[in-house]
Amino acid sequence: MRQIIVIGIGAGDPDHLTLQAVKAIARTDVFLILDKSEERQDLIRLRRQLLDEHARPGHRLVAAPDAERDRTAPGYREAVDDWRHRRADLVERLITEHVGPDETGALLVWGDPSLYDSVIAVVAEVLARGRVTFEYEVVPGISSVSALAARHRTTLTSVGRPLQITTGRRLAAEGIPDGVDDVVVMLDGRAAFTGIDPSGLDIHYGAYLGTPDEILVAGPLEETAPRIAELRRQARARKGWIMDTYLLRRSTD
Amino acid sequence: MRQIIVIGIGAGDPDHLTLQAVKAIARTDVFLILDKSEERQDLIRLRRQLLDEHARPGHRLVAAPDAERDRTAPGYREAVDDWRHRRADLVERLITEHVGPDETGALLVWGDPSLYDSVIAVVAEVLARGRVTFEYEVVPGISSVSALAARHRTTLTSVGRPLQITTGRRLAAEGIPDGVDDVVVMLDGRAAFTGIDPSGLDIHYGAYLGTPDEILVAGPLEETAPRIAELRRQARARKGWIMDTYLLRRSTD
Ligand SMILES: C[S@@+](CC[C@H](N)C(=O)[O-])C[C@H]1O[C@@H](n2cnc3c(N)ncnc32)[C@H](O)[C@@H]1O
Ligand SMILES: C[S@@+](CC[C@H](N)C(=O)[O-])C[C@H]1O[C@@H](n2cnc3c(N)ncnc32)[C@H](O)[C@@H]1O
Repeated sequence: MRQIIVIGIGAGDPDHLTLQAVKAIARTDVFLILDKSEERQDLIRLRRQLLDEHARPGHRLVAAPDAERDRTAPGYREAVDDWRHRRADLVERLITEHVGPDETGALLVWGDPSLYDSVIAVVAEVLARGRVTFEYEVVPGISSVSALAARHRTTLTSVGRPLQITTGRRLAAEGIPDGVDDVVVMLDGRAAFTGIDPSGLDIHYGAYLGTPDEILVAGPLEETAPRIAELRRQARARKGWIMDTYLLRRSTD
Repeated sequence: MRQIIVIGIGAGDPDHLTLQAVKAIARTDVFLILDKSEERQDLIRLRRQLLDEHARPGHRLVAAPDAERDRTAPGYREAVDDWRHRRADLVERLITEHVGPDETGALLVWGDPSLYDSVIAVVAEVLARGRVTFEYEVVPGISSVSALAARHRTTLTSVGRPLQITTGRRLAAEGIPDGVDDVVVMLDGRAAFTGIDPSGLDIHYGAYLGTPDEILVAGPLEETAPRIAELRRQARARKGWIMDTYLLRRSTD
């Protein structure tokens, strides 16, 4: 039976790979790559490094240009759904054309596939359509959220308290939710932390976590936000892109 | 300089170990173990297996009986704080007495050290007291939350929506929070999922994730809760203990 593996490869440090991921990479015949036009050279290089080190000799790599997301569409959710359908078309085609009936194909996902990533949903959609059959499994990975906490040597949860993981867009629209003291923000292209009421909040900020460009800053949000915003602007100008995430925590005093 | 490493070792599958954790284990001179009186033989065996496989020859293991938490104290948070102070006493003593000034000591943490675990706070407290000096770092691990999602081949986040991670105690007291469609529940000794209004909710449940005893159940909460409660009761009776976690998700239709 054809096998498909969705492999979480960690947040940017090659040593984030789990032994399970190493073994999954080693038994893969074909790696299926959705090439983002704007994909970062550093990330492509890192992925190549992982495969050079862990993939078996003779493995194949097949790529298709990733579907573009319509960023001008009014409905965020609809645009993402539509994008997912078009990605499912691509993955279906890659599997049909390139993964033999007794072969193993893999899709590599940055971080952990369970957080703000659509590959699992895309693979499930391909399977549900029923035009190609396969077994599939998911290998968990170190998320950027776990990497953020580890690099700051902090926990994400306070004793007995909830943790919320959300997006920059929602933080900007809704602020820190009621009843929650710890919020991790991802997918924040616009530095939403500069636009909320900073009083009583601490920030633990991380950009390019796990990579040689890593930036870590922590402190009271009020004092720290302008400095982070400036570092962020400079880093983005220098590298052309940024990946960042942060924990906001109500200070306990 | 003395080094202390807090190492996340994953949720129960030896292959959850990251390459970073493997390397950290391999460079450790002394493993510092807080022995819980009620610790599970399976987990002790698993930990021993990890060390047999990855620790360097000649490594040492030192253990102290873990502080007991006062489960009858009225304030949960105070009881946990007090427990942490007493654990800090123990860890301080283990470091002082057993980790030489140029040696590396490690504390192993199940799952990811950032989620509902006090070892990071304990080590920070020991350092802040200033009676023993060391450098320390944290190695992230695969949390039971990531393992749950991977085994169910589902994402935790819906498109653009927040995820809340909370405890059984809070779910029982407050139900599903407003504005959140996806909630992961940990530390639920009392099957709080059986006590909430199940309408419109799906559950993805996992016990003993990553181990040979793993139990996975998914479905609409209304139909599934009684079966999970029964499986849970049986498993706990058979093994004497249970570790479980689950995702509750508002159904989209
Ligand atoms: C599409 S989501 C994917 C998240 C990924 N599945 C994970 O587990 O980290 C991308 C977001 O993850 C965060 N992110 C991913 N990698 C990161 C890194 N190395 N450093 C900081 N943030 C990162 C950023 O918030 C980014 O906007
Ligand atoms: C003290 S917390 C520690 C969590 C851990 N740091 C992590 O990242 O998973 C213990 C809780 O984690 C969850 N848990 C830990 N290991 C688990 C496993 N193998 N299967 C299911 N749940 C687990 C359960 O909810 C348990 O009550």
